[in-house]
Amino acid sequence: MSEYSARDADDVSVGIVEKKFYTFGGGVNQSLVLESGAKIGPVTVAYETYGQLSPAKDNAVLVLHALSGDCHVAGYYSKADAKPGWWENMVGPGKGIDTDRYFVICASILGSCGGTTGPSSTNPATGQPYGLDFPVVTVGDMVAVQRKLLDHLGVEKLLAVVGGSLGGMQALEWSLRYPDRVAGVIALATTMRHSALAIAFNEIARQAIMTDPNWNKGHYYGGPKPDTGLAVARMIGHVTYLSDEAMRRKFGRRLQGKEAFSFQFDIDFEVESYLRHQGNKFVARFDANSFLYVTKAADYFDLERRGGAGSAVEAFATARSRFLVVSFTSDWLYPTYQSKELVRALKKNGLNVSFCEIKADCGHDAFLIPNKRLSSLIGNFLEQTRDESRF
Amino acid sequence: MSEYSARDADDVSVGIVEKKFYTFGGGVNQSLVLESGAKIGPVTVAYETYGQLSPAKDNAVLVLHALSGDCHVAGYYSKADAKPGWWENMVGPGKGIDTDRYFVICASILGSCGGTTGPSSTNPATGQPYGLDFPVVTVGDMVAVQRKLLDHLGVEKLLAVVGGSLGGMQALEWSLRYPDRVAGVIALATTMRHSALAIAFNEIARQAIMTDPNWNKGHYYGGPKPDTGLAVARMIGHVTYLSDEAMRRKFGRRLQGKEAFSFQFDIDFEVESYLRHQGNKFVARFDANSFLYVTKAADYFDLERRGGAGSAVEAFATARSRFLVVSFTSDWLYPTYQSKELVRALKKNGLNVSFCEIKADCGHDAFLIPNKRLSSLIGNFLEQTRDESRF
Repeated sequence: MSEYSARDADDVSVGIVEKKFYTFGGGVNQSLVLESGAKIGPVTVAYETYGQLSPAKDNAVLVLHALSGDCHVAGYYSKADAKPGWWENMVGPGKGIDTDRYFVICASILGSCGGTTGPSSTNPATGQPYGLDFPVVTVGDMVAVQRKLLDHLGVEKLLAVVGGSLGGMQALEWSLRYPDRVAGVIALATTMRHSALAIAFNEIARQAIMTDPNWNKGHYYGGPKPDTGLAVARMIGHVTYLSDEAMRRKFGRRLQGKEAFSFQFDIDFEVESYLRHQGNKFVARFDANSFLYVTKAADYFDLERRGGAGSAVEAFATARSRFLVVSFTSDWLYPTYQSKELVRALKKNGLNVSFCEIKADCGHDAFLIPNKRLSSLIGNFLEQTRDESRF
Repeated sequence: MSEYSARDADDVSVGIVEKKFYTFGGGVNQSLVLESGAKIGPVTVAYETYGQLSPAKDNAVLVLHALSGDCHVAGYYSKADAKPGWWENMVGPGKGIDTDRYFVICASILGSCGGTTGPSSTNPATGQPYGLDFPVVTVGDMVAVQRKLLDHLGVEKLLAVVGGSLGGMQALEWSLRYPDRVAGVIALATTMRHSALAIAFNEIARQAIMTDPNWNKGHYYGGPKPDTGLAVARMIGHVTYLSDEAMRRKFGRRLQGKEAFSFQFDIDFEVESYLRHQGNKFVARFDANSFLYVTKAADYFDLERRGGAGSAVEAFATARSRFLVVSFTSDWLYPTYQSKELVRALKKNGLNVSFCEIKADCGHDAFLIPNKRLSSLIGNFLEQTRDESRF
């Protein structure tokens, strides 16, 4: 077992990539049955892959994206693209998730707006966008769709699933739903169940959207969109991904382009300008209804409930994967104590668990930010899993 | 110096109280000059008093309320009132601020909607409500108005000023603006300067109000009010006043009146129901424009800026009061480290400072919740100040 060593992440990239689509469930009785009991079909899955599947098909790594992400993990769609995928620092040749060694897959989640079926997709029953007729989906439903894609790709077993935040919830769900198909689970900055605090922020964000008159009970496609509500929702989310310390360092009380207070309600502080910018940028790329669906799925996530009698230990009784759990010191959305609860539940089931709390002052978003320690932890875990797994 | 001992706070009350009004600045050249340079007049101040001013006039305590409070600190307006004032547990006969011994005064702050002049008051220039023509005010302006009231009441010197949160900022401001008029300063759950995190939440709350179409650039009086925006703003504020721990204890993941998820976007969790209730309750009693003005005043508050060259030590160079600073372990809006910075700045000026961090899991709002330790700290501090002060 060789020690993992990262090349400089800035120098290399998977380069030009292509978004692909897979559709299933279009026929009679072929629709997907959701956890709610509702059925949906056809379902189109948008996905990307990087690297090559080995002849033994033993090197597939499924990356699971978070709330506002999509299947575009790394690389560029064209040379004109200003920005690469959302985890460019982690996924690529020689990086933490090394595309020279692993076949990396990522699919946009069900209910969102990254190309996979969601509330902005056409409802076959009406020929119009679903809007709120789209059924409420769960993290389990997202994972069920990912499994369909893997069947399509001929990937029977995954070397690992890896995700942060909502992606981490999907990773945990994989280990319970399909325990024989996942050798390793990497759960970053995540939780076994959404806390009241996390539900509260999501609910306020949803209220901001649903009270925007343009939301129109979800039927705004083709008309003015609930942009102001969605912008406020994004701003709320954004602050919860940061930390007091990071915001102090990043903005402090610096004024935006002025030396004295305006004594008006326009922008005074840099942090205000930053938030408005983040809000406006987000509405250009994200669907407000999808924000409702994806946050609801996160709020519903609760492995203790799933385990019965509120027991996380029971929940993992059937898990067979090895786990890497990582938390970040300044993450107050899914604090370290929640990762420790997860680790305890896994250990009580005799599972192989590595846990690391990384010192980082940048809050919940730390898992997205280049961090050699994190890249090294993930790289080593993948390598060990490949060495130790039986397939 | 006798040891302070509290009677059971639930048994006693100041009883029936009356809101009073004082108006100044109505004549030519009598208007109040604000920190911004703007002038305003006439200014009406709503206030209440409890207890009796001693013949020596040496027992006056000024209570300073926080963002959503007003001058109604304790007691009831009539026997029909369901609830007493906001600090009933602290202010009354035998309580932390003992109305048998002290003459307690509280005035609604400038810019808010508790009876003191604010954006919903009539603009004498137009005969219409000010709306956004009301000038942006500062914590210093609020304190200047309080001083006018004290002159009117014939109170030359205060035994103490006491306030939490925005009230604590006013208390600190008093010690700098009128150092010879305040013997003791009690600053609870507060800060010397609003952090980027605190500004961020205030800005998002303001955005929620200002993007509500009913807000209409502040001119909504007489028409539909921006209730949905204000409700979202209040919900945001409310979460920042709580803590992860308190919310876990208070709500956890309990469902509201159901045993299974609704798989809809209505209320599932108790915490969602609670937040919507808090939002709706707030819009019935608070003016949306006032929310803008009061949060802006908090955001502008910065004693380091005032001290020049970003020095908090310089800021307190002219202070002469004795200080009691109290923080709460789970307050993440104004965390303990900010109180410690304040204490250091005070000590470097050779001032008499007591500091206490109280263990409490209920977040920023801890200062409002009955706490024997806090009552005892305040009671003892007032007693010592009366014993040791020179007037």
